[in-house]
Amino acid sequence: MPTIATREDVRDGILDATERLLARYGYRKMTVEDIAREVGVGKGTIYLHFTSKEEVVLSHVDRIVERLKERLNAIALSNATAAIRLRLMLLTRVLFRFDSVQNYTQSLDDLLAALRPGLLARRARYYDEEAQILADVLNQGRDSGEFEFGDALATAYALLHATNALLPYSLSTLELGEREEVKEKTAAVADLILHGLLRTKPNAATDPGVT
Amino acid sequence: MPTIATREDVRDGILDATERLLARYGYRKMTVEDIAREVGVGKGTIYLHFTSKEEVVLSHVDRIVERLKERLNAIALSNATAAIRLRLMLLTRVLFRFDSVQNYTQSLDDLLAALRPGLLARRARYYDEEAQILADVLNQGRDSGEFEFGDALATAYALLHATNALLPYSLSTLELGEREEVKEKTAAVADLILHGLLRTKPNAATDPGVT
Repeated sequence: MPTIATREDVRDGILDATERLLARYGYRKMTVEDIAREVGVGKGTIYLHFTSKEEVVLSHVDRIVERLKERLNAIALSNATAAIRLRLMLLTRVLFRFDSVQNYTQSLDDLLAALRPGLLARRARYYDEEAQILADVLNQGRDSGEFEFGDALATAYALLHATNALLPYSLSTLELGEREEVKEKTAAVADLILHGLLRTKPNAATDPGVT
Repeated sequence: MPTIATREDVRDGILDATERLLARYGYRKMTVEDIAREVGVGKGTIYLHFTSKEEVVLSHVDRIVERLKERLNAIALSNATAAIRLRLMLLTRVLFRFDSVQNYTQSLDDLLAALRPGLLARRARYYDEEAQILADVLNQGRDSGEFEFGDALATAYALLHATNALLPYSLSTLELGEREEVKEKTAAVADLILHGLLRTKPNAATDPGVT
């Protein structure tokens, strides 16, 4: 189906161009005309795919979350214990987003101020999808006798809520420069909360992974 | 010292008026002149206390956090177990802020968009102060044999990070209408993370408080 493939390619090209322009100009200064020029198409072509600049950028955020979900699914399928997989998934959900905005941390406040309502509206869907992936691993951890908890989906949401404050949306420009610090904060929360899920407390000397 | 008392009273009166005007007009539409009229003083009097509208509103946020800290300190001094005190402190830090913005949830996005850099800059200080209060209770819980953890202050920050995503700053207008939902989410995170701190796992049947 070459037509559909091409349509997807153009769409992806527009989102790639948007990412570069967010780094170069920031959200406020970037126009749909700039995006068209960067892709090498006419402005009308952009409007064949998106209704507005806002929708282009929100779709760019959607794509980041789609790619994150692929990573999370890959971790979920790996062979490590459920606790180790969940720890890595929590670190990944924070650091993947962190890395995704590294080229435009200076102008991120602009973007967040302009798109706050649109972003908050999408966020619920993003979290639902992430929660489902986490809940599967939680259930596996319970089946193997590793974890003990009530409802898997409710517990998955608690894991998301506990790490949501470390997503770029909630960080200052300064904090967005400190990857190691964000990583340490996320690991501290993840370890504390995963520790609470374990059926038996590990001996710190023999199981340093999740304490 | 009657002069100082009066100065404090005027300042408090300005912040009270600001709170009412935020509910009535929202941040963007409110002017320093509106505030002066609401207090019943001249515009010049406002500028004796604050340099700008932005500073008035940030001081209003400061006052919310000061009052919250009084509540947290009162809970810290109560007779309950450390786990029960910490649970209540985490719920309070979220719900006190939630209640503080209930009169202007519709215009909160405006305020957050305009003041984001100023708010993020102050936030570090707010969290440092809250962390110190939590760390004291964590240490008491360790001394009494209730808890087991590494560094008290680092653990206190992990507790804050784990609940920060539920503060009004991170919620949508819709979510800010659902107090019971925010309370349940906070309780879920608090219980999970406090469970991780306990030295021995409680029996759910005999100790339903923190599981």
